[in-house]
This record gives sequence, C-alpha cells and structure tokens, in this order.
Amino acid sequence: METTTLALPTAPAFDTPLAPAALRLVDAYWRAANYLSVGQMYLYDNPLLREPLTLAHIKPLLLGHWGTTPGQNFIYTHLNRAIRKYDLDMIYVCGPGHGGPAVVAGTYLEGTYSEVYPHISEDENGLRKLFRQFSFPGGISSHAGPQTPGSIHEGGELGYSLSHAFGAVFDNPELIVACVVGDGEAETGPLATAWHGNKFLNPATDGAVLPILHLNGYKISNPTVLARITPEELDQLLRGYGWTPYYVEGHEPALMHQAMAAALDEAVENILAIQHNAQAQTESIRPRWPLIVLRSPKGWTGPKEVDGLPNEGSFRAHQVPLVVSAEAPPAHLAQLEAWLRSYRPEELFDEAGRLLPELAELAPLGNRRMGANPHANGGLLLQPLHLPDFADYAVAVPAPGTVEASDTGTVGKFLRDVVARNSAPRSFRIFGPDETLSNKLGSVFEATSRQWDAETAAHDEFLAPAGSVVEMLSEHQCEGWLEGYLLTGRHGLFNSYEAFIHIVDSMFNQHAKWLKTTLEIPWRRNIASLNYLLTSTVWRQDHNGFTHQDPGFMDHVVNKKASIVRVYLPPDANCLLSVMDHCLRSRHYVNVIVAAKHPAPQWLSMDAAIKHCTQGIGIWPWASSDAGQEPDAVLACCGDVPTLETLAAVSILREHLPELKIRVVNVVDLLRLQRSTEHPHGLADADYDALFTRDKPVIFAFHGYPWLVHRLTYNRPNNTHLHVRGYKEEGTITTAFDMTVLNELDRFHLAMDVLDRVPQLGNQGAHLKQYLKDKLVAHKQYIYRHGQDMPEIRDWQWTAGVTE
Amino acid sequence: METTTLALPTAPAFDTPLAPAALRLVDAYWRAANYLSVGQMYLYDNPLLREPLTLAHIKPLLLGHWGTTPGQNFIYTHLNRAIRKYDLDMIYVCGPGHGGPAVVAGTYLEGTYSEVYPHISEDENGLRKLFRQFSFPGGISSHAGPQTPGSIHEGGELGYSLSHAFGAVFDNPELIVACVVGDGEAETGPLATAWHGNKFLNPATDGAVLPILHLNGYKISNPTVLARITPEELDQLLRGYGWTPYYVEGHEPALMHQAMAAALDEAVENILAIQHNAQAQTESIRPRWPLIVLRSPKGWTGPKEVDGLPNEGSFRAHQVPLVVSAEAPPAHLAQLEAWLRSYRPEELFDEAGRLLPELAELAPLGNRRMGANPHANGGLLLQPLHLPDFADYAVAVPAPGTVEASDTGTVGKFLRDVVARNSAPRSFRIFGPDETLSNKLGSVFEATSRQWDAETAAHDEFLAPAGSVVEMLSEHQCEGWLEGYLLTGRHGLFNSYEAFIHIVDSMFNQHAKWLKTTLEIPWRRNIASLNYLLTSTVWRQDHNGFTHQDPGFMDHVVNKKASIVRVYLPPDANCLLSVMDHCLRSRHYVNVIVAAKHPAPQWLSMDAAIKHCTQGIGIWPWASSDAGQEPDAVLACCGDVPTLETLAAVSILREHLPELKIRVVNVVDLLRLQRSTEHPHGLADADYDALFTRDKPVIFAFHGYPWLVHRLTYNRPNNTHLHVRGYKEEGTITTAFDMTVLNELDRFHLAMDVLDRVPQLGNQGAHLKQYLKDKLVAHKQYIYRHGQDMPEIRDWQWTAGVTE
Repeated sequence: METTTLALPTAPAFDTPLAPAALRLVDAYWRAANYLSVGQMYLYDNPLLREPLTLAHIKPLLLGHWGTTPGQNFIYTHLNRAIRKYDLDMIYVCGPGHGGPAVVAGTYLEGTYSEVYPHISEDENGLRKLFRQFSFPGGISSHAGPQTPGSIHEGGELGYSLSHAFGAVFDNPELIVACVVGDGEAETGPLATAWHGNKFLNPATDGAVLPILHLNGYKISNPTVLARITPEELDQLLRGYGWTPYYVEGHEPALMHQAMAAALDEAVENILAIQHNAQAQTESIRPRWPLIVLRSPKGWTGPKEVDGLPNEGSFRAHQVPLVVSAEAPPAHLAQLEAWLRSYRPEELFDEAGRLLPELAELAPLGNRRMGANPHANGGLLLQPLHLPDFADYAVAVPAPGTVEASDTGTVGKFLRDVVARNSAPRSFRIFGPDETLSNKLGSVFEATSRQWDAETAAHDEFLAPAGSVVEMLSEHQCEGWLEGYLLTGRHGLFNSYEAFIHIVDSMFNQHAKWLKTTLEIPWRRNIASLNYLLTSTVWRQDHNGFTHQDPGFMDHVVNKKASIVRVYLPPDANCLLSVMDHCLRSRHYVNVIVAAKHPAPQWLSMDAAIKHCTQGIGIWPWASSDAGQEPDAVLACCGDVPTLETLAAVSILREHLPELKIRVVNVVDLLRLQRSTEHPHGLADADYDALFTRDKPVIFAFHGYPWLVHRLTYNRPNNTHLHVRGYKEEGTITTAFDMTVLNELDRFHLAMDVLDRVPQLGNQGAHLKQYLKDKLVAHKQYIYRHGQDMPEIRDWQWTAGVTE
Repeated sequence: METTTLALPTAPAFDTPLAPAALRLVDAYWRAANYLSVGQMYLYDNPLLREPLTLAHIKPLLLGHWGTTPGQNFIYTHLNRAIRKYDLDMIYVCGPGHGGPAVVAGTYLEGTYSEVYPHISEDENGLRKLFRQFSFPGGISSHAGPQTPGSIHEGGELGYSLSHAFGAVFDNPELIVACVVGDGEAETGPLATAWHGNKFLNPATDGAVLPILHLNGYKISNPTVLARITPEELDQLLRGYGWTPYYVEGHEPALMHQAMAAALDEAVENILAIQHNAQAQTESIRPRWPLIVLRSPKGWTGPKEVDGLPNEGSFRAHQVPLVVSAEAPPAHLAQLEAWLRSYRPEELFDEAGRLLPELAELAPLGNRRMGANPHANGGLLLQPLHLPDFADYAVAVPAPGTVEASDTGTVGKFLRDVVARNSAPRSFRIFGPDETLSNKLGSVFEATSRQWDAETAAHDEFLAPAGSVVEMLSEHQCEGWLEGYLLTGRHGLFNSYEAFIHIVDSMFNQHAKWLKTTLEIPWRRNIASLNYLLTSTVWRQDHNGFTHQDPGFMDHVVNKKASIVRVYLPPDANCLLSVMDHCLRSRHYVNVIVAAKHPAPQWLSMDAAIKHCTQGIGIWPWASSDAGQEPDAVLACCGDVPTLETLAAVSILREHLPELKIRVVNVVDLLRLQRSTEHPHGLADADYDALFTRDKPVIFAFHGYPWLVHRLTYNRPNNTHLHVRGYKEEGTITTAFDMTVLNELDRFHLAMDVLDRVPQLGNQGAHLKQYLKDKLVAHKQYIYRHGQDMPEIRDWQWTAGVTE
C-alpha cells in the first residue's frame, strides 16, 4: 500500500460550529455529567442538593478518581453530539479506566443505565442509589467495568485500550470506536506500539478507530511524558505513528466546546471520507487517520485549591480532591457544596430529579446510544461459526505409532476451511506474532492472507489489504486485538510460541476477570472463548534453547476461576482436531491448547481420538499390559513428548519385564486431574482412583512444570504414590530427546522410576536399571560427538502393542 | 528541563572519512566476522577451507539465524573503529539476540573469546571448535547469551534491549551502550516505549545510549512495520521520540563503510559534546541524542538466490539460507563453498589460522574491547551497599498488637538512608511505575528525587535532573532498567502494585534464566539480587477492586530454579525491615517481598522479628495456647492480612473454648514450606512436622492463591490434614475485611474451619459455630448499609496473649 495524507487539514480548528443555543445545551449536558460524577464520589444522600449539605449526606469512605473524569464527560458529551449529527454507529473505550464515574454518568444521562438497572431510576430516588452504589460495598467499582453499559474495556490495568479498539473494528466497517487514551496509559509498552494498529486496518472492510489522546498532564503523582515534551515533538510522534492530529487545548469551557465540536466534526468527516474513498477506489491506500489531542486540566472544573495547594490542573486532583469528613477541616464541606452547586443542578434536573427534556434530547436514540450499542455486548451479535467436520481432516492411523504427521500442520488444514467458511462476512480471525508459518499453520494461506496495510514489496508472501490472519511482532497487540474482536461478538484464535505467551499473562488475567464477572451480570451475553494454540513448545527448541523454554502459562491460567479456564494437551493430530473443534464451539472460556508442530508419531485413529478427547483422560489399553487387572504401576502422560517417552519406556519395560503389569493413562484435558468439587471438568475421586489406583506407583510424565500436577492432585487418595516428571528448568540448544534427558523425562529415566517403585522385581530389575544407565551414558557420548541422537532413538517405533 | 536540539546535523552524512587503506582493512575485518559467522552455522570441519568443501565438513543439523548477523558484524566492526578513535568505554547490546554468531565472531576476532575460553584458541584448531560448538549439543546457543563475553542481554525474547541499555548507563557517565534494535523487536510494546528513556537520562551524571535501529526489513516471514512506512514517517517518529536520526542506507560495502564511519563519528562527537556541555553548564537541558538507522539487506552478502527464489534482502534469509545435506540439491554445497570463499579467508587468517596482525590491530585494546569491558560482567564491579542498621528503624512494639504502623512506611525510612548512603557515587536505585508515594515509601524523597529530564512545571514534586528514584508508567521499563542497572554491577529495588507485576512475568523469566545460567559460568561474577517489593496487595484494594487483585506472581516465580528464587511475606514492619536488609545484602537471587502499606497492628519487637525472620517460619508462643504440648489444631498464617485474621480467630477460639490447645505458626519465608531436597530454604520433614504436627488439623491462612501452599507441601506427611484458605478470585470494591469474607479467609471462617476439624468439641463447638455464622450475617447487613465494617471489626485488638 502506498501512503497518502488525503489532504487532511493539519492545523487546529478555529471554527465555532456551535450556535449559542447549542453551546448552552452542550455545556449544560456536560455540567450534568460532572455533577453526577462528583455526586458518585461524595453523596450518600441529598442527591439534588435540595437541602443544605451536611456531613450526614457524605459517604463514610470517599473513593474514586476525579482527575480524568471531567475530561471524559466532555468527550462523551461531544461524541453524543457527533453521533446525532452524523448518525454514527459508535462505541466508547475508556482507556483511563478509573474514569468510571464519567461513563456511568454518560450512560445514565442517555437513559441506558436505568434500562439495564431499573432500580437506578431517572428520578431523585434513582440518583440517590446511583450515587450511593459507587465504590460502595455491594455496589459498583470505580472503573468502566463489565457492569457499565457500553463498555468492552475495564481499564483497571492500563495499556490495552487502543488494542481493544482496533480489535472491535476489524470486520465491522460501520463501527467507529472512540478510544480515550490517557497520557499515563500512553507510557505503557502495549499502548506505545498500539498506535501502529493503523498499518493493519483496511479502510474498506474494517471500521475506524478515533483515538482521543487525553493529555491531562499527570499520573498519580508524576507528570506524564507526553505532556512534558515540546508540542513539536508530540506532533512529530503522532504523525510518525501515521496519524493526523487535531489539537483541542485549553480550559475555558465555551472556547473548548467550540474547539472540540470543530475538531470532532473534522475528524468524523475525514473518517467518512477515507472510508468512502477506500470503498469506491480499486487501489487501496493507507490513510493517515485522524486523531484528537485533548489537552485539558486534570480535575477540570474541580476545586482550584485545597488547603492552600493547587488542585485543578495538578496531580492532586488524581483521586478524591477534597476530603470531607468529621476529621477533615470543616471548610471542606462548604467547599464541596460550592463545587457541586457550581454545576447548577437546579438548571439540569426537573422537580422529580429527571434530566430536563431539552438536555435529554442531546443524546442519541436507541442503539445509537453508546451505552446501548450492541457491539459493546458482543454476545448479542454472536453467531456460531460455520465449522467443517473436523473428522474429514483426520490422519489415517492404521495402528498406533505407524505414521508420522505434524499435529499443528494437520489442524492447519481444518483452520484453513474454518477461515474460508467464515469469511463473508468475516467473523473468524487468527492472530499471532509472525509465527503462523513457523507454527505449521501455513495451510490457512490457501484460503486467506495476512492483513497488511503498510507498503508491500515484490517478493512478499501472503499479504493483502484484508485477510483473516493478523500478525504483528507484539503479543500484546495480538491479545488485545483478539479480545476486542471477541468482545464485539466474533471468533478467533491466538497462535504463539509457548514460552512467550507469558508476555500477555497480565492481559489474560484481566480478560479472565472480565469473563468471570460478566457471567454474573444478567444482561451481558456470553461471548466466544479466547482460544490459545501454544506450540513451538519447551521440548522442541532445537534452534532457540533455554530462553524459549517455559511451559508455565498453564500454571498461571489455572489460578483463575474454574468456571472460565480449560487446558488441553492433545497427544496427536487427531486429538488436536477434536479439541480444536470443541474449543471453537465453546463459549465464555479461556481455552489453552498446547500442541506439537514437528512431525511425530500418531497414536489414535479419529474415532479413538474423539472418544479419548470426550473423556479427556483415559487408559490406553493397547499400550498397557495390565489386561484390565490392577497394575503394578501406572505410567501416565500428558503432552506429546511425554506421551512419546512414556510409550518408549513402556516398550522397554514390556520387552525386558514381560510379566510386569503396566497401565498407560493419557491426559488430554488437564483439569480432569482436579477434584470434581474444584473444577467442572474434575473427576470424582472414585473415577480418578479407577484410573490411577489408590496405592500403586504412578509415574506421571508431564509436559509442563511437574508441580502443576501435584497442585491439581494434592488431595487425591493416591497422592503419596504419585511421582511426576516434567520440565524442571534445565535446557539449552540440543536435540529434542536430550532435552528430555536433561529434565529426566526421557524413556530411560521413566523406566528407572518404575523399577525404583515396584519392589518385587529383584535382580531382573537391577539388571535392567544398569542397562538403562548405560543407555544414558551412551546417549551423551553420541550426541556430543555427532550433534544428533543415536539411531536407536531416531528410529524408535512403537511395536509393543498394536491393537486398540 | 528545556528541550534543545544543540544544533545537531540532521542530514545523512556524505563524508568519506575512511582513507583507502583504512577502508580496505575495515572491510576485511567485516569479511572475517562474516566468514566466522557462516562457519559457525555450517562447518563441522575444514574451518579455513584448506581443502575443497565436502558434505563431511558440514554439520549434521544446520541451525542459526543468518538474517541479522552480517549487519551486526558491520556494526560491531565500525564500533571497534570508533572506540579506538575516541577511546570510548563502550558495550554492545544485541537486541536481535539470534545474531549470536555476530557477537561470538566479534569477540573472537578481538581476542576476548579465547581469553575466556582458552580451548577456543586463535588458530585453526580453535576455529574448528568455535564453529562446531555453535548450536550443537553441549555447545553454545544461537543468542548473544550469558556465555558470550561482553553480553548483558540475551535477546531470545525480544523487546528489552533498549531498557537494558538505559539501565546500564544510569550513573555510569563514562559508559556508552551501543544498542542494536532490530526492526522486528521495534514492534514490541516494551521497545516501543523504551525510546522515551531519553526523558529519564541525565547527560551530566549518566552515560549515553546510542541506539542503532537495524532495518533489515523482515521478521520470520513478514515485513517489518518500520521498514514499510515512508521515510518521512520514520523520521517523524524517531524525532517525535526525541532523537536525532542519522541514516546509513544501502548495500554496496564501500559506500556503506564510508557512510557508517561518518555517521558514527558524528554520533559519537555529538554524544561527547552533549555530555561536555551538560557537565560544564549549570542549567540542564534535555538533548536530542543521536540515533543511527542502518537500513541494509537482510542476510547481507549471503546468497542472492536459492533455488530460484530471492534470498539476500528477503525474509528467506532469516535462518539458514541454504540447506546443505545429503538430501538437499548437490549444487547447494558448491553454493555454500562459493559463499564462504567470497569472504576470501586466505586474505584474513595466517597459516596457523590466526587473524592477520594488520586486522587484529583494528580491535580496541584490553578492557576497551567490548567483549572484555567489565561493565558487561557487572559482578566484577559490584561493591556492597553501605547499609544503616535496620534495627534503628524499628517500630517499638511493647506487646503484640498494641501499636499500629505502616509496614512499607517504616521500611521507607530505612530505604531513605540506603539511598543517602549510596549516592556518591550512586549505586542504588528504586524503580517503579509512579507508585513510590502510593506505596508509602515517600520518605525516600527526603533524601533524593525522581529523576526526570523532561520539562517541569511550577508545582511538580520531587523531580530533579538526577535522583535515585526512577518512575515511568511502564512496568516493562522499570524492570528492564533495573535489570540493566544490576547487570552492570549496581543495586536496586522495584516497587510495584502486586497485581500488575504480572506485566513483567516474561521479563522475570528471562532474568531468572540469565541468573541460573551465569551461576554455571565460571568467569561470570555474581550480581546483586533483583528485589521486588510488592504492595497494594490483593486484600487492600478499597479503591480499585477486582482488576487490582492478583497475588499469583509468587506462583510464577517458584517455577524457576530453586537456587535463584526467594519469596518473603513479612507480617509486620519489623519483619519487613529484617527481610529488606537481608535481600539488599543477598546476591544473584530474585527476591519477592510481599508487604502491607496500610497502617496495621504490629506483632513483633525488633529482636523477636530478627529471630523470626532468621528462622523464616516459627511458632508464635504468645498467640498459642498449646503450652508446648501437642496442639488440637495448628493455625498457620502467611502474609499480613491472613496473620491478622488468624490472630482474631485465635482470640475468638481462646475466649470461647479456653481449653482448646491451639498453635499459631507464622511463615515469613515461603519456601521454608518446601522440602529441603527441593529448595535450599526448605525444612527437613522432621522440622516441618515439629511445627505442623504429623496428624493434627492445620488451618493455613495464606496471602495468595491457596493452591500454592498445596504445591509446596503436597509431599509433607501431614498433607492430608492441611486446609488452606487464600484468595480464590473473588473480589470487588469493598472493605479489607469484607474481602476476606468473600474469600472465606476471615476470622469467622477460620474459626469455623477449626471447629469442623476438631471432633471432640461437641455442643460447645456447635454453639460457637452458630455464633460465628450469625456474625457473618451481621457483617453483611452492616457493610451494605454503612459502607464500612462493624465497629467490632474496626476496633478489634489482640488481647488473648501478651507475653512473648
């Protein structure tokens, strides 16, 4: 794509688009929002100041964040005006999430709040409840959280607003997301690179993001970086990011209203022109989308001074500017009353406490109201995916271990057709940090391309202005975009190297909290699950070594609410197909799928895989030698490499100790290990015992850190006989097999573990143990000399049992 | 600070600073580095091509990343020239970490590699070993990792190079870090905001970072964003970030050498001028530091085409460009030989295989060599901190529970004096995302300021051009800066809200891996520990609610190597003092300290605290009623709020059931819970049993997710009687006490847990249980009405036992 500036104006707007009457109404609406915001922070009673303010009207604990709130009220009010003027389909993302009072006020004034929460009615009684519930036990939090109508973004943890906004507008060409970015948030890494989202946005098939960078100058107690560089630098930075900034700067309300209205009109008209041009033109161009910089005082319209120190326009306005309590200076009460009355509530609300009709008219109607826009309650819009039959992609497995295939390569073909069947309109996207090919999902490029709206060159591959795959080397963007896409009612998948998914640990936390909370909110509809496909795993880092080895994302995930999280480790391609299909159909979960990408032996036919994945855990009779009896030892495995090594260990044991009764248990659905009282997928103790016995040694070969299995099973009866092998943070660049040796998860160690725990083996066991030790020595000698594994490792094939 | 451009030149340099002879030598040196790099990827033998290349000379597995390597060789060569010309004290940070072959080649050519690894000698035999060890089992990884002399940055996970570079130069005014930033890495969030580090750098007291943005155009299979925006946009972006870019663009070696030498000369001279001016001037200014943009082909000088597809200058040059093996087209072998011979090794190495003296002379001497610079092996420079006696800051605690204090507020005074005593030269810094005041560490501002080199305004607080506290609203920067500071031999502390430390989970992973690996490298010296002080914890989120509640960083940390990680939860201020002192003295660990900031009851005198923290875990006899006998139940607690609730539960039980024998165990050092075979701090089973008994019920009130305690104790004899209460992901904005109720960690639930597990209590127990249930109902009714806790909760004081 070429870049063009589309001849957008670049100077600040000096128009005065608001006639005096309109100006008066806009200002009144803003005052109403500010009044409601201060009311939420302070008032326990007397919501309309119908009587003189006393301490009895003040909440016992004053909480909330005032600093960002009046600026956001200003923005919300002006967006309402623009929505009406241009009939926009717009939602609001509140980056400075602590500005909850603003979004609550905005949605209350437009009527959506009372529709969703009828007890918060549009009268004095409703106002009292509205105020009282804020930051009050049993009430609502101080963020634009899940409880807030119109919100898809909480903002408790800063950095993700712009990523969410871009995710929301992908494939929503009619939607504009007005995204308020705080200048504190703008210092975070994720936000700093999120500006580049404009290189991945197609003006013809996606919607638009209108960022509003809110420079109020301060964080908790520090100034912000972007407010303390020269205007020239700021302008260079934003243009360098590819945007056209419009500046609205000042503090005098009348001038600011005119400037904001003018800037917003220009920005909206430019967005519409860009989209019109893009849809009309055959050749696509990357526009420099508009962006608004609002530089207004922190705590704007709040107390100028408190106790002799400046407040409005300073960091001291960040939270509650004025402490009002029995212990605080008595003058504070009067100062608060003056502050509240400065908004002239008597000019805003009628006798009953309802917003005056002439003001209420300023809000958009119906679903055009930002609090009622269905995009912000994506479950309302969610349609099931059109899924092909995953069994059609099965690898033919005539007998266990007889064929090799790439698990992700196989599921890639399935995903290719998922992409194809859900492309008109597009409702399924795959996100990743430039690893889709590396992760062997390249088949998807038979059906789609990577969406890329920056410049292209002659020999680029699989790039197009619109496509179902989006790749940027920022896990934060991949996660944020996918979350925004899901939250607005679509489907998707994040494919990532296993180790680096920790980069988004904290984003996952916030999304899991969002899912947990929205489950408890009746008017919120369930959305599609967030699906992670983690590959290039700890065990296969031949190129990359120790830095690329961390299977701990599972540990992180299982700390979140059991109703939300699911973890799968399919041992082969057919199981991966079954699991992927299940996850794409599921709702309101986080599904973590850990799978292999390198060609590897296949174990289960499609029918067997479906049965195994449906159970999530099960005995593999063809690999076992206990013939349905109580075994001498259980060899359990979870993950592709542990399964391979377990089967190799079993074949050694069965060859050398044919009378030993071994049971092989494979785990696909990790949370089956937990008790049924702890997780919906958990096994009842009796079912667990039926698999693992109550007192026989269990050698568990696990894909991840071994302690995770102990954490899940500590209260199982057979806990004391459970011995788990897994990754114990030993690694380097070496062969896949040597990695298992370094961590004692290899076939030889597993077999020795059995010998150590089955007492009756006597001399036979001792001889075998020496044989295994010799093997380990031979292995080391061989790879240090040859740089690859011994032929017996490379050529090993399962032969011990061939009947399913 | 004002901003100035210092009249730096902004146009590309067209000088030709290299005379023909110098040009010839620089090019030869670069060819030598490229030759060594290709050799590392391919050659098992025949390192100097003294015989025709055959498949027997090729490694069995070809691994490595060629794409970035020749550009880095080019940079390293030119930096050598600049170091000699200007006698610079410079180290090299290799952002595109996969370019390990370049740094290995560079350090080998300058002689440091063979000094550190004498078996990799400067002769043909050494070359053979150098080549063979690369990406070979038992050898070295493909990154500029800990094994690489001169490296403080691995680059396996991308995004942190520039943060590390800034951290390294803080308080090192003589040091320049040349930091190569790949254009892939530049897309990550952490890197995108790291450019703003220049607003936190003082040119008079810190060193300089010279970023070299290496635009080679491609990632694994995608183009890069910064290579596909217009030159105008790129220039705006870099200037907007506050830098002055110099461009070196092209591919023809002779022209590129001249351009690079000219740009580097100008950049270095500007850095020296900026520093000279800053040190000479009384008024400080924020300079626009120079930055070099090197736009060169990916895989520069490599094969132009492979199998008919373009290679040099395309994404196909990312890893091994040319597969040479028995299975590959035979022509590839000849193509590789031609490629290797294109560097004319016979003109570079003498008969013995040693670099020709005229080339070796180009490298700097002694510690000026980037591979030998002691800043890159910071333990060499590390000096112990000057620490005041922490006991001097003790809170006087005449009896348990009789006084209140803020734990972090208390340690803040200690830290103030640590700052003061280590300020000339400054060797201790506190990093945080604008939370130092919020975390009640404000006392430090009596001794220092927040370093801030952007503009200031009239009412700013605690900002200065140089100071020991550095705050930017990016946990990534805080972590990266601190790591860079520690890796170059200094000391520091990261203070953060507990929940948001997950933002740096992945950075912690990489640092822990670095520490683990360097422990195994004899020439690497131990560095100061990375200390986290986590506060504003899950239990006290009165303002912030659910999004700010996540105690899971501990879970994440304990997956790393036991030799590296330590976790402390001091229950009061005196314990926090003792723990902090211990952590600041420790070496080569990651210490996680979780502590309270709100005023809360104090339990231990300083003497008792020292004893308790030294043991790390212990019985509190003054709180217990078992009088040294076997108790009926053990109440264990870990963390400030769990300790408070446990003691409150104990006082209820002791009041109502005076004959019940209760033992209170408090845990400061979390890893004492683990077996001594698992962690150096772990208790032997006998010692554990002496505290927890082998068969009595243990009610464990834990600060974090309860499963972490189970994960640490699953193999303890008394495991089946262990009942852990902790955070189970229930939360909102509410009182601190109500948070414990929501998660059933409150005094009433804890007391009920005891009643449920001590069978002999009969009717007395049943009555007490009903009483406790009634209390819980009363609590809910009260807070929903009053917005705060019942007076009996607010006013509760420990009185049950007062003798230590």
